[in-house]
Amino acid sequence: MRDLKEIREEINEIDEKLIELFKRRMECAKDVGNYKKANNIPILNQDRENEILDDVLVRGGEYGYAAQLLFSNIMELSRALQHNIVGSGKEMKELIENSSPNIPYNKNTKVACQGIAGANNHEATLKIFPDCEPQFCKSFKDVFMAIENGEADYGVLPVENSTAGSVSDVYDLILKHRFYIIKSLDLPIHYYLASIPQANLEDIEEVWSHPQALAQCSDKITANNYKTLQSANTAVAARDVANSKRINLAAVCNGSAVKEYGLKVLAENYENRSDNTTRFIVISKKLYIPENAEKISLCFGLPHVTGTLYSVLCRFSSLGLNLTKIESRTMANKPFEYLFYLDFTGNVKNDEVTKLLCALSTELPEFSFLGNYEEDFA
Amino acid sequence: MRDLKEIREEINEIDEKLIELFKRRMECAKDVGNYKKANNIPILNQDRENEILDDVLVRGGEYGYAAQLLFSNIMELSRALQHNIVGSGKEMKELIENSSPNIPYNKNTKVACQGIAGANNHEATLKIFPDCEPQFCKSFKDVFMAIENGEADYGVLPVENSTAGSVSDVYDLILKHRFYIIKSLDLPIHYYLASIPQANLEDIEEVWSHPQALAQCSDKITANNYKTLQSANTAVAARDVANSKRINLAAVCNGSAVKEYGLKVLAENYENRSDNTTRFIVISKKLYIPENAEKISLCFGLPHVTGTLYSVLCRFSSLGLNLTKIESRTMANKPFEYLFYLDFTGNVKNDEVTKLLCALSTELPEFSFLGNYEEDFA
Repeated sequence: MRDLKEIREEINEIDEKLIELFKRRMECAKDVGNYKKANNIPILNQDRENEILDDVLVRGGEYGYAAQLLFSNIMELSRALQHNIVGSGKEMKELIENSSPNIPYNKNTKVACQGIAGANNHEATLKIFPDCEPQFCKSFKDVFMAIENGEADYGVLPVENSTAGSVSDVYDLILKHRFYIIKSLDLPIHYYLASIPQANLEDIEEVWSHPQALAQCSDKITANNYKTLQSANTAVAARDVANSKRINLAAVCNGSAVKEYGLKVLAENYENRSDNTTRFIVISKKLYIPENAEKISLCFGLPHVTGTLYSVLCRFSSLGLNLTKIESRTMANKPFEYLFYLDFTGNVKNDEVTKLLCALSTELPEFSFLGNYEEDFA
Repeated sequence: MRDLKEIREEINEIDEKLIELFKRRMECAKDVGNYKKANNIPILNQDRENEILDDVLVRGGEYGYAAQLLFSNIMELSRALQHNIVGSGKEMKELIENSSPNIPYNKNTKVACQGIAGANNHEATLKIFPDCEPQFCKSFKDVFMAIENGEADYGVLPVENSTAGSVSDVYDLILKHRFYIIKSLDLPIHYYLASIPQANLEDIEEVWSHPQALAQCSDKITANNYKTLQSANTAVAARDVANSKRINLAAVCNGSAVKEYGLKVLAENYENRSDNTTRFIVISKKLYIPENAEKISLCFGLPHVTGTLYSVLCRFSSLGLNLTKIESRTMANKPFEYLFYLDFTGNVKNDEVTKLLCALSTELPEFSFLGNYEEDFA
């Protein structure tokens, strides 16, 4: 058996040669890019790539699959270079260049949110637009319609860890309407146990709230052996408890709902976990990209092929961009099988980031740039 | 400018050398593995890897980041080889070897599900366990408690595209209880517009259902200009409409709820999209891995570092394993910042798959094998 030092010396020698060859191959990729630009030839040549991968599999012997993986990365990186040379994704570039950095806002700005007064959506809306008079909509869909029809300038919607719906519902609507995300807010959600003013803690026998809020407060509810009843949302629970006039009832709701429906606080921080937060986004018909924007959201389709997601992530990874969220969703009856929602840190002022977006907008089916925005934490 | 043919000849020549060097480097990795096995040295040497990556960045020049990416993959593949040689992940291996292929079931088997009779969960439970008498639980948590306490043998829970909760809620509970997924079912969800027997379609003015079901049926609801009221779930809406005795009301609910509450069908396939399905899983305290299992579910933590997810996916991709689902979630107050839920196609009878699971169980924080199971489609 060889000594570790001896093996590592051989590895170092191999690595030196590998790097030089890789650099030479990237130079060749540039030459190919220039040739394709001059002759107006598309960047992707799937037949040529498949030919190389087939050859690599055979030559790689027992390491065939691993070698294929390496070469699919090399070709991915080559294509990225070539897209930059050719200047792919002109539409994407124009979209970014024509965006405005300042989000207009004054007390006449109309902001739509789903639910009723006192819902978490209402609270988030007032945090982001403190002077506005929110327009309450029945559904997420109605929020989008209000913006589409010009009845609202912006909409505020929950996208993560919310009792009101899933990320994909909201993202689907953003894609359908071709709207943009222009801001996000992470809001801590604290629940109160609240009753009509005449009631006291020892009177309570039954608790009303949204099923997810009941679940988030299950420790104390179980410890007190309360009966529970499910409501459509936490503000509705608060309103219904207020209207019931019953002293043995309490709602699990937020502080705005307590105020809105004149309830009495019986207990604070009723949630099991004190770090409970919900992410809200602001949507807009027009694209705004603030100077300090730090998060980019994308959506794209991928075929059901081994390694395709991996190949796309290669592009982000090679630029040192941090993914902060990824979510896949199966699509039925589509030319691609998966839809991906992806967030990463970055700003389009960084030329490399814009080049990446331009290249991906050319290469990926159903590619959508959802926005580049600031993240706030309340 | 060089001709394309000429450039490709140089590329082919480079590729030949690259493959040979890569094979030599993998042979070296094997030698390192054997040395580490003999001397009981841990596989991962982060300092050595960082040293190599720093060096590669400098040597790579304008391709420094791309070269780093390539080398992080090479080291990832080397580590995979070394883990196989050392035989990492003994616990994981034993867990798989001690699992049983046959899921015991007869008419006395006790199956828990959340909700009330007529809910989609009930329908899914009867599809999977046709002869069982389902035990209805108030919450997902109660389903887990019933299994934990031995009151139920299995639980049936929705995990995707459901009105009842999110994937991560269910997965969190699976992890907390250390249960396993032993089966999945994709069930098409069709909604009915249903009323009390005395009502007719032209009488209807108001529709009750869960907010998500209302959204899924919004086309026809909007077209008819119906008022809507949100219920805690679709079966509750059906029950409440039945109890109301009002002829101007209808519920949006499934076929079981129609039967359960003696409603009259006013319209079928009320949903906007005919391909609406929900995925259900069966959970169990004991691990069963059927012979024909085709899907593997995992969960693991990752630090907030560029490319870590990419590196892990490299391992799957190098074995040609198809990812079918990926979802990230931010963790607060944890030694890692992200938790990933991942599904891929495979069976532990494939030795390469078991080796991968054993290696990942050693390398990744909070690694959990959630199950290897058959997928059914109703």
